[in-house]
Amino acid sequence: MEDVSTIVFGVWFLVGAALVFWMQAGFAMVEAGFTRAKNAGNIIMKNLMDFCLGTVSFMILGSSLLLGSSDWALGGFIGKPSWDLFLHFENYDWSSFVFNLVFCATAATIVSGAMAERTKFSAYCVYSAIISLLIYPIEAHWIWNPGGWLVKLGFHDFAGSCAIHMVGGISALIGAALLGPRIGKFNKDENGKVVKVHTFPGHNLPLGALGVFILWFGWYGFNGAAATSVEQLGSIFLTTTIAPALATVSCMIFTWLKYGKPDVSMCLNASLAGLVAITAPCDTVDAFGSAIIGIVAGLLVVFGVWLCDHALHVDDPVGAVAVHGVNGIWGTIAVGLFSTTTVPGNDTLNGLFYGGGIHPLLIQLLGFAAVAAWTAVTITIVFLIIKKTMGLRVSEEEEIKGLDPTEHGLPTAYADFLTTK
Amino acid sequence: MEDVSTIVFGVWFLVGAALVFWMQAGFAMVEAGFTRAKNAGNIIMKNLMDFCLGTVSFMILGSSLLLGSSDWALGGFIGKPSWDLFLHFENYDWSSFVFNLVFCATAATIVSGAMAERTKFSAYCVYSAIISLLIYPIEAHWIWNPGGWLVKLGFHDFAGSCAIHMVGGISALIGAALLGPRIGKFNKDENGKVVKVHTFPGHNLPLGALGVFILWFGWYGFNGAAATSVEQLGSIFLTTTIAPALATVSCMIFTWLKYGKPDVSMCLNASLAGLVAITAPCDTVDAFGSAIIGIVAGLLVVFGVWLCDHALHVDDPVGAVAVHGVNGIWGTIAVGLFSTTTVPGNDTLNGLFYGGGIHPLLIQLLGFAAVAAWTAVTITIVFLIIKKTMGLRVSEEEEIKGLDPTEHGLPTAYADFLTTK
Amino acid sequence: MEDVSTIVFGVWFLVGAALVFWMQAGFAMVEAGFTRAKNAGNIIMKNLMDFCLGTVSFMILGSSLLLGSSDWALGGFIGKPSWDLFLHFENYDWSSFVFNLVFCATAATIVSGAMAERTKFSAYCVYSAIISLLIYPIEAHWIWNPGGWLVKLGFHDFAGSCAIHMVGGISALIGAALLGPRIGKFNKDENGKVVKVHTFPGHNLPLGALGVFILWFGWYGFNGAAATSVEQLGSIFLTTTIAPALATVSCMIFTWLKYGKPDVSMCLNASLAGLVAITAPCDTVDAFGSAIIGIVAGLLVVFGVWLCDHALHVDDPVGAVAVHGVNGIWGTIAVGLFSTTTVPGNDTLNGLFYGGGIHPLLIQLLGFAAVAAWTAVTITIVFLIIKKTMGLRVSEEEEIKGLDPTEHGLPTAYADFLTTK
Repeated sequence: MEDVSTIVFGVWFLVGAALVFWMQAGFAMVEAGFTRAKNAGNIIMKNLMDFCLGTVSFMILGSSLLLGSSDWALGGFIGKPSWDLFLHFENYDWSSFVFNLVFCATAATIVSGAMAERTKFSAYCVYSAIISLLIYPIEAHWIWNPGGWLVKLGFHDFAGSCAIHMVGGISALIGAALLGPRIGKFNKDENGKVVKVHTFPGHNLPLGALGVFILWFGWYGFNGAAATSVEQLGSIFLTTTIAPALATVSCMIFTWLKYGKPDVSMCLNASLAGLVAITAPCDTVDAFGSAIIGIVAGLLVVFGVWLCDHALHVDDPVGAVAVHGVNGIWGTIAVGLFSTTTVPGNDTLNGLFYGGGIHPLLIQLLGFAAVAAWTAVTITIVFLIIKKTMGLRVSEEEEIKGLDPTEHGLPTAYADFLTTK
Repeated sequence: MEDVSTIVFGVWFLVGAALVFWMQAGFAMVEAGFTRAKNAGNIIMKNLMDFCLGTVSFMILGSSLLLGSSDWALGGFIGKPSWDLFLHFENYDWSSFVFNLVFCATAATIVSGAMAERTKFSAYCVYSAIISLLIYPIEAHWIWNPGGWLVKLGFHDFAGSCAIHMVGGISALIGAALLGPRIGKFNKDENGKVVKVHTFPGHNLPLGALGVFILWFGWYGFNGAAATSVEQLGSIFLTTTIAPALATVSCMIFTWLKYGKPDVSMCLNASLAGLVAITAPCDTVDAFGSAIIGIVAGLLVVFGVWLCDHALHVDDPVGAVAVHGVNGIWGTIAVGLFSTTTVPGNDTLNGLFYGGGIHPLLIQLLGFAAVAAWTAVTITIVFLIIKKTMGLRVSEEEEIKGLDPTEHGLPTAYADFLTTK
Repeated sequence: MEDVSTIVFGVWFLVGAALVFWMQAGFAMVEAGFTRAKNAGNIIMKNLMDFCLGTVSFMILGSSLLLGSSDWALGGFIGKPSWDLFLHFENYDWSSFVFNLVFCATAATIVSGAMAERTKFSAYCVYSAIISLLIYPIEAHWIWNPGGWLVKLGFHDFAGSCAIHMVGGISALIGAALLGPRIGKFNKDENGKVVKVHTFPGHNLPLGALGVFILWFGWYGFNGAAATSVEQLGSIFLTTTIAPALATVSCMIFTWLKYGKPDVSMCLNASLAGLVAITAPCDTVDAFGSAIIGIVAGLLVVFGVWLCDHALHVDDPVGAVAVHGVNGIWGTIAVGLFSTTTVPGNDTLNGLFYGGGIHPLLIQLLGFAAVAAWTAVTITIVFLIIKKTMGLRVSEEEEIKGLDPTEHGLPTAYADFLTTK
């Protein structure tokens, strides 16, 4: 039966990778729909280019830093660089390259939403390429390479709540903070205290909603691609359905109670939050665990948006920090709380609430802290170098006019829209 | 070879379920695109929430009413309620839950289109949850649980022309009738006779068309997911392609002849009509049968729209009754007419036109009548209770302003759209 | 193991076919998004109908001309017509029909973009049906039927750079040339010399971009569906990722250098160009080869657009000639240059740069020339007959008003869009 599974799950692995590629469309539509029309072309271009430039980065260096042998240098910290992709194609692991590339591109693309509507396109190209070249491959090596130091400690992140979403979310937070808010976002009094927070509603909610549906659909590939049995895959599909569904319900109820009306775009973000949170523990928690993880995620996303807007005063146009950062952390921790060996394919990992004691939770916290520190330090260096050299932000005039005309010579992404009226 | 098939079709079963989930995006885009801009956010929210609330309903009770043993009570009418999902996760049929949930959500979501632009969001949440909690699971138990009474009689509905689409369509018809038409839909003379029927064109035809393509694509999963051999799956893909294609062609020709011009949105609905009609017999009819079924479906959808508008005076903004109701019935009956044992995997079922006599047709009619009666009675009770208690319809003022601002505090789903011009 | 592969790749073959069907949505969104709002409904309708009418053509005759035995007549030039689909359904190759139909529909749909915004809908229906009835099935027989004369010579086109994209691109070029440019496209001086070329920007860039993402996602099925091992499929996914990514990067750099700003819609077309170019050699080139093929494709698409606009003065609204025609030729030739037996599943074919000598290149050139000649001659005859009889182009008044109201009685595809403001 081993050979059968190798073939079946070999094909499914690639189908899953294609679904993860498809999530790029989801990110593009979410980010375009939830921002203003004058920057829609720029956002499309950024989402397109982070995948394409990321492919170059990943070909040249990233893939081998992630997938290469751990033993050559620090031991578990970084893979051995190689150009086997070019030099030994006949023995290369083609599927693994594709699979890891589409995941890498997801980490890179998360940042663009939080820094939307005011980042220089050239700066975006540079830091996006560096995430795929160095930052992501190295921490993903820790988490997913058989020789990675976190793997050896027993850290568990099945599909990337930590490795991808939290890394993207932290980078997004730091980027948006260093960049500063969009013009008009925060009104300040004479002492520099924020007295009013403006909301810029997105220009195309149905497009943004389509993006959320695309992401949810693609997430069955994202979470499921690495499964190795039908039972495990079924269980993963189950948890990957329950968590976002309950996150959306809990967010609807909360916003209904708090604001008097159920909030559409917050609920759409809650679906994503539930998906992010279930990503690490999708293969180790049961129906009950995934329900709790989802319910909490639906509240955390509201908290995360409040945190950025009202406590940190960081302008994150699409809520990427709340969705990917806050819930990436939550999912990473949840592994240590809710994991249970009643789940198919999980023979050993029990969380704190399932008799596993504090140890798994501590390992998850250690992994979170290490990856967060790595990401924060490296991305801060990257952003600061960009800021001092080529500049990170467009001019005030360009921001007001919109990035489509000023960065791309595109008068508008919706030319001629109304001439038929 | 049995084990190989178990693994291969076990994975495909889940891929198919993911495709059916993806159809939620299709319904959302069709319904949003074919209605007015002022309600676009509300429609998105309803499509999102029927899946998420349906998940809760299905976890708590629906899944066991559908999948549980038939023997405990009436014998074939209702499954045994259980919380095995939570209590016995290690032995649970995870794939089956996911698969049946996404089908259940499809039944629930059909209703929202017919009742668009004037239903209270809170009322929608309640009846949508009840469909997934009770109405759908019980009739689906009859049709798909091995112990179901219709199964034992030989009733055949492979993927749900009856169990899903007709149930959704009948609920849609009753809901739209009880709700009343949108303001301005029907002009009446002094005797209350309708003298003019207005059409409210949709605000975004390309988005609606995208929804139709999403649905067609997802339908390969919808019809194919339960296949158990490559031959059967190939045959299902073939009939699932021919029927909608020919429905679209027959509708184009008919509208061209009748109105002088080929009608775009009617043809898009015809594609869906062909898909609905082939859903029950997709695994028992051949190329010729699926062609005839499709051609008829393309005409029935025009008839169904006429029926609602000009005979019943029921306001169905997106044509859900014509697409899902009328063609759900047609597909259910077609099984008894066109089934043939020349189709792979169908060893016994021949329709009236293929030497099977009148018996299969009568069984199909019996099943249709029983499910229609069950649906009509239960959904009427639900709607009437809602109408008497919380109210089913928004106020006239809210309807005119649009449901986005009044129900969700969203000034418009397209903020800022034109500031770039 | 043979039986396992038969089942696994039998299912994947159909999943791939579904992904190719999904590309129809991509074409519809690309073409609608990159043209003007007043023709959006017409473009949707054309994309819908070419699939549906193509199904009829393919059922009646096309499928057997492609798939039927080569021996009955000219020997390798045309399959034996048959109605086995209807007469011998029990032994029919259902999967093969579906697979070949969705590919056929792709060839037909490419043409609509180049002839957008001015072609009579009735004329479109006729020539689109003829492409699926005769033109495509016959040349595809040469390339893909085991008895085809190009197959026997060793011509290689794995997924259709030549058979589909070049055929679509050449038909598009001839169609657009015979049709003439849209009103206002070319300003001419008194001697008839073009002195200024206008650009009509598309009305919905995000929709067009969504179409590109749909196409890229679907292309994993397009290129991969016919794979027969996990290794081969992984390698195909790898080349199908690298080529479009590098095409997009090379195009971005080129437009940035040449125009001072990175061009969004050209880069989106470059992604498609890279996909078209890698289609023929996706299973015979390695990472390096696919990178070079992609880089060249990203430049060729810019050249192709320039060629149409400034040298040929042919008005191709969406760049179909540059994307599918020019790069279809490039991909066909690239097989003869970059093929290498280091690729899994390729035991024999080495290109000119990999020690295979000039022979494979000459065979590719011969195949390109033969298929180009066949397409050019037959499609010209079809267009000329249509032009002389029913007419190919709408009246000047209809073109100015838009094809939605004049051809379909649809006042606009975006009714009511702004009433909520």
